[in-house]
Amino acid sequence: MKQGVKPAAGTDHPVVKSPFESRFLLFPEGVRLEEPASGSPTVTYPRGFLAAGLPIGLKESGRPDLGVLSVAPGWHDRDVSAAMFTTNAYAAAPVVVTREECDLDHLVAVVMSSGNANACTGEHGLAVARDMGATCAEVLGVPRQRVAVGSTGIIGVQLDRDVVVSGVRKVAGALTTGGGPDFAHAIMTTDRFPKMAALELDTGSGQVRLGVCAKGAGMINPAMATMLCVVTTDAHLDPAQARQSLKYAVGRTFNRITVDGEMSTNDTVVFLSSGASGVTLGPEALKRFQAALEAMLLRVALMMVADGEGATKVIKAEVSGAEDHRQAERVARAIAGSPLVKTAMHGGDPNWGRVVGAAGAAMAGRSLPASSLRLGGVLVFAEGAARVLSAQERAELAAAVRRSEIEIALDLGLGGASAAVFFSDLGHDYITINAEYHT
Amino acid sequence: MKQGVKPAAGTDHPVVKSPFESRFLLFPEGVRLEEPASGSPTVTYPRGFLAAGLPIGLKESGRPDLGVLSVAPGWHDRDVSAAMFTTNAYAAAPVVVTREECDLDHLVAVVMSSGNANACTGEHGLAVARDMGATCAEVLGVPRQRVAVGSTGIIGVQLDRDVVVSGVRKVAGALTTGGGPDFAHAIMTTDRFPKMAALELDTGSGQVRLGVCAKGAGMINPAMATMLCVVTTDAHLDPAQARQSLKYAVGRTFNRITVDGEMSTNDTVVFLSSGASGVTLGPEALKRFQAALEAMLLRVALMMVADGEGATKVIKAEVSGAEDHRQAERVARAIAGSPLVKTAMHGGDPNWGRVVGAAGAAMAGRSLPASSLRLGGVLVFAEGAARVLSAQERAELAAAVRRSEIEIALDLGLGGASAAVFFSDLGHDYITINAEYHT
Repeated sequence: MKQGVKPAAGTDHPVVKSPFESRFLLFPEGVRLEEPASGSPTVTYPRGFLAAGLPIGLKESGRPDLGVLSVAPGWHDRDVSAAMFTTNAYAAAPVVVTREECDLDHLVAVVMSSGNANACTGEHGLAVARDMGATCAEVLGVPRQRVAVGSTGIIGVQLDRDVVVSGVRKVAGALTTGGGPDFAHAIMTTDRFPKMAALELDTGSGQVRLGVCAKGAGMINPAMATMLCVVTTDAHLDPAQARQSLKYAVGRTFNRITVDGEMSTNDTVVFLSSGASGVTLGPEALKRFQAALEAMLLRVALMMVADGEGATKVIKAEVSGAEDHRQAERVARAIAGSPLVKTAMHGGDPNWGRVVGAAGAAMAGRSLPASSLRLGGVLVFAEGAARVLSAQERAELAAAVRRSEIEIALDLGLGGASAAVFFSDLGHDYITINAEYHT
Repeated sequence: MKQGVKPAAGTDHPVVKSPFESRFLLFPEGVRLEEPASGSPTVTYPRGFLAAGLPIGLKESGRPDLGVLSVAPGWHDRDVSAAMFTTNAYAAAPVVVTREECDLDHLVAVVMSSGNANACTGEHGLAVARDMGATCAEVLGVPRQRVAVGSTGIIGVQLDRDVVVSGVRKVAGALTTGGGPDFAHAIMTTDRFPKMAALELDTGSGQVRLGVCAKGAGMINPAMATMLCVVTTDAHLDPAQARQSLKYAVGRTFNRITVDGEMSTNDTVVFLSSGASGVTLGPEALKRFQAALEAMLLRVALMMVADGEGATKVIKAEVSGAEDHRQAERVARAIAGSPLVKTAMHGGDPNWGRVVGAAGAAMAGRSLPASSLRLGGVLVFAEGAARVLSAQERAELAAAVRRSEIEIALDLGLGGASAAVFFSDLGHDYITINAEYHT
């Protein structure tokens, strides 16, 4: 079982290099990003969290493959959480165990492994996932229902119980406040770089901090784009606030990106609030908190798209003029999911007929005489016909599709609703990575 | 405007080399395939048809780019037809003109061009499509409503009216009984080889002949996989028989294949019956006729999959144990549309977790504990868990996924319905062809 290995673009990737300059990203007022000299904003930036990540022998490469992240013992009584999972009918054992056997409002820790998904593994797999959580809970001295379990990697291979259990003991006994980056590395598979962000927010009622780290590159699609993601805050939330905030932010970020239209068997997002800031949130402060959470998760979502297997670009498909939001979203997803659009964008090819073809398929049976299309800001199609472009427009168009961030804006000409989806291009490396993932 | 050019695999393609040995293809009794020494069974094999195809200057390459196929003048009074079109909301001008302005029950000829789709071309495009049909009708001496028009190629570029009109005059004046292969070549774009088949059938009431030629490689997906297809017969059908037979056969063949999940703006299938055999079909003979038609179209559909852009394999995804046919088909299409399944098959990788992941996404929100999966005939997953394979089974599995035809059989364990979809793998050449199609 060899993990797929990506060509090493690493942090030289154009979209990742200057991530906060993305044209698609705006942070709301009152937010101060944590931008440490190390370049690794950490999921343990909020107060009251500990983490660790180590190699325990699940990945043949010897790279870190098990991580634990926990609310620090002093804050267990304030701890509040929320969680969301894949809806895949073949949900992996750790998803089943966490979703059905844990207290999702009061999780105190997560234990996550990479290299093996523990999916399609039957009763034995469920037992191993339970043991993973129970061992972590035992070391931390908390009830087993308060530890979420997650795994990512190859499907259909049994995890070795003894390796996992002794590994969990080792990692859960090594937690530190600085362990966030190690945790982030331990959950990576084909990721070229860890996805992390952290910020401090003036809520109006006091300063709170937020942190996130995620793993995800291929097999990325709504719903629940992340394979594994942990979000932390030291705000003192109640369970309803945590649930509602997570659902809102995931819906507007992870559920609006696609790499390859695939839905994993293992997607899990856990949101842990330590309460360590002592700040509770009234209605106005909660709004600010949710806006900051959304911006932070969008930042990580765009990192995932940029790290899409073989991807070199982040593209925004915005559909306006729809009869309702659902229709707009359906068409935007069709454009984002089209292999012809993806390959054209990969080649820096202004062949906008691909976009129209994909959108028209999503609106099959209709006729759309009043629609128009802008590619990279240039109006190429209006009132049902190709525009004859000036030399300057042709030059603008050619330059726009060669950029690392591209905007596609289709107006259906039917109504007032709109929606946007972010997606990656499709290049040779996707084939290379995925044709050789297993063997 | 350069047409994408495929790496020249030509007729050396493994699936094409021995097309009638496909494990997915069975011809019913009473059928005799036309297998000429030239290797080119022709769409003008049925009696009462003429065709031609020539270069008129639409393709930069100078290859043939306009074809006309017509019922021979002596049979115009018996002529009966049917036609089906893409439902894309941005349907091309020739589709709009043919669908809305022609007598689809009594078409006498088709004129089809390649190199330019005449899509997204507004009023001017509609006028050119009308002129194309009218000029052809004028040369043939038939009413303009009886000539179908089709185009394929790049979207959003205007066709030159004068080039088209003089080209149509030239081609429509050059029809011969042996012109079928020339017509087939004239409608090709990125196809590596023309798709043709012909057969003679003993209906029980007399011998009738059937012929087909089609163009299609990329942008292949239900509904209406073909971009352009003409089906001919010398059976003496009535309009209802023609319509019903075409709809039935297309539903079970072209609508059950996928290359890249894309739906074209130009898909057109025209079915022409010359009546030149003098054989009319009673209920029993019609059944035989429809079975032969289905087999012939499946043969061409499998050729299209084999010629999928960059494709090296034909894969059958069969889903059984579903609650109803619709569910089975939805899951089969999800497997066939999954880039991870496609790339794994391309790499000859037995990573069946890709199949389960895609199927589970299509059945999101359910749990499927009783399902099982065979890959290349080997049972790899049963009762919700990976099976431990013997050395012999592992060897069988490895050999099966390296073949040019692969079977995936998923039993959902829910009910008695089943469905199958045929699809191609996804390889580097798809990226190469489509990232550089336009520029």
